[in-house]
Amino acid sequence: MEDRTSAPPGHPQVPASRGDLFSPQCPTRRLLDRVGSKWVAMIVKTLAESGELRYAELKRRTPGISAKVLTQTLRALEQDSLLTRRVEPTIPPAVHYSLTPLGFSLDEPLAMLRNWAETHMPEIDRHHQTANG
Amino acid sequence: MEDRTSAPPGHPQVPASRGDLFSPQCPTRRLLDRVGSKWVAMIVKTLAESGELRYAELKRRTPGISAKVLTQTLRALEQDSLLTRRVEPTIPPAVHYSLTPLGFSLDEPLAMLRNWAETHMPEIDRHHQTANG
Repeated sequence: MEDRTSAPPGHPQVPASRGDLFSPQCPTRRLLDRVGSKWVAMIVKTLAESGELRYAELKRRTPGISAKVLTQTLRALEQDSLLTRRVEPTIPPAVHYSLTPLGFSLDEPLAMLRNWAETHMPEIDRHHQTANG
Repeated sequence: MEDRTSAPPGHPQVPASRGDLFSPQCPTRRLLDRVGSKWVAMIVKTLAESGELRYAELKRRTPGISAKVLTQTLRALEQDSLLTRRVEPTIPPAVHYSLTPLGFSLDEPLAMLRNWAETHMPEIDRHHQTANG
């Protein structure tokens, strides 16, 4: 979907204590779009359950994700301080990913949303089939 | 982000009772991407609090949304049976939107995610500024 909420430089209207999704200048709305995706929901759940994982293992446990999208998603999560990357200086280097405490705090709200989607998907899907059939 | 999860015709692998976000063929993952957006988070909260609203009022209470994106978002919510549209046969016709019980059930998980984003946005934003400064 179109995004009209790009931040002004230095985003001067950022409140000090708390964000406001309904304020167009507030970075909360872009943050919500970054974390409210299926890929983030899967990666956060997997890392919350497994602790530290290597890239290839994370890719295997996120069925359907491409290498490009996985790399982009991991980088975005790292930039949001939700994930840390540990490089082991082997040849070739082994890269390990794990959640930060902030990333762990996202697991519960995402689990609620995932649970809602998994619970109601069959009902919603039946409506689609009725509407199209 | 790239989406490799388009549904096969008739999506034959839909489980009868419950979805699975980790199954690439399952419509749950597309559903999660549809409902996990900032616009849906705002529209569901506004309708959950206000009951039935007209298009113009909904647009006013969703600051920053364009007419095109609002229309697309409302149509997607209606197709997912989360929202109903009531047309009053006045001239011009008045269109009223309200949540279905299914739409109401989405309010709580989205409120958790919105609350997480609003609470942690300042901390995440500080990390961005430190990283870029």
